[in-house]
Amino acid sequence: MVAYIDLGVDESTNPGIRGLLRYRPETGRPLMQLAEALLRGPNSLTPGERELIAAYVSALNDCDYCRDAHSATAAAQLPDGHSLVDQVLADPSTAPIADKLRALLRIAAATRRDGREVTAALVKDARAAGATDVEIHDTVLIAAAFSMFNRYVDGLGTAAPDDPAAYLPSAARITRNGYVER
Amino acid sequence: MVAYIDLGVDESTNPGIRGLLRYRPETGRPLMQLAEALLRGPNSLTPGERELIAAYVSALNDCDYCRDAHSATAAAQLPDGHSLVDQVLADPSTAPIADKLRALLRIAAATRRDGREVTAALVKDARAAGATDVEIHDTVLIAAAFSMFNRYVDGLGTAAPDDPAAYLPSAARITRNGYVER
Repeated sequence: MVAYIDLGVDESTNPGIRGLLRYRPETGRPLMQLAEALLRGPNSLTPGERELIAAYVSALNDCDYCRDAHSATAAAQLPDGHSLVDQVLADPSTAPIADKLRALLRIAAATRRDGREVTAALVKDARAAGATDVEIHDTVLIAAAFSMFNRYVDGLGTAAPDDPAAYLPSAARITRNGYVER
Repeated sequence: MVAYIDLGVDESTNPGIRGLLRYRPETGRPLMQLAEALLRGPNSLTPGERELIAAYVSALNDCDYCRDAHSATAAAQLPDGHSLVDQVLADPSTAPIADKLRALLRIAAATRRDGREVTAALVKDARAAGATDVEIHDTVLIAAAFSMFNRYVDGLGTAAPDDPAAYLPSAARITRNGYVER
């Protein structure tokens, strides 16, 4: 057992949030429906771009499991894969991304610190770079949701595999089938 | 218009999260299903105790709308109503609550700061005061979820009524019907 509570599952094959979802399906279902709507629902931001926002927020929160899991899922769905993800996590201000995504990542970083740090000026900049209202809304909610997921995973002391390769099978499965088991 | 994006609703009658839920029902539905499961589903913690944890975390995050909304909903469902809520928000270490709830509020405060601040010692204290694994799990997830809701509501610059009485009708409706419209 690694987590602070007995999840009743093998945590080596159910690390991070996966053991928690099995432990408490009553909350696991709406959590995964939220992830599906935010990260994979119809949107002018691609799934790869949205996973990148999730990975970036998780990296800023030092949540190893979420950072590595969503980096893998972002890389699986972005043209430049892991190289682009690594550059964004290292420094979005110099990463080779469009100005719109860069402005949205600034809104995500502000949301992560504190909702009140999102200013009219940050929103105006994103709009000037071409962001729509829905894109601004979804960016704030993705950053807010990962402020939840990161605390959930770390607050219960769950395990995070060190090897980035450990995250590849589930990234492939999510890219194919999504977050909600059918 | 008060919020940073045009929500397409009258914000004076749809303050805080309410305008956001109407603006984006795709995410609004799982968000309210999560609130229903966490705050009103079958549980050894009463709905009033769980709303109190939500109000406490929202107060620590200085999210006026969520603090006042969940204080009203907690007060509507606790024997000592607003007096108890006010004492808990002012200082849980001296408020007239059971040691178990006091220990869970310490876990909630740690989760709010950073998931990694929840320690084995805090969990051990809660267990010694009689908390079950499910209660510890749900406390961490309530605190994590309000770390999301608070950022969502404030990050998009929504309105919060100043008058505490403005929150009473919706507290009564939630106490009666829950968070999910049927």
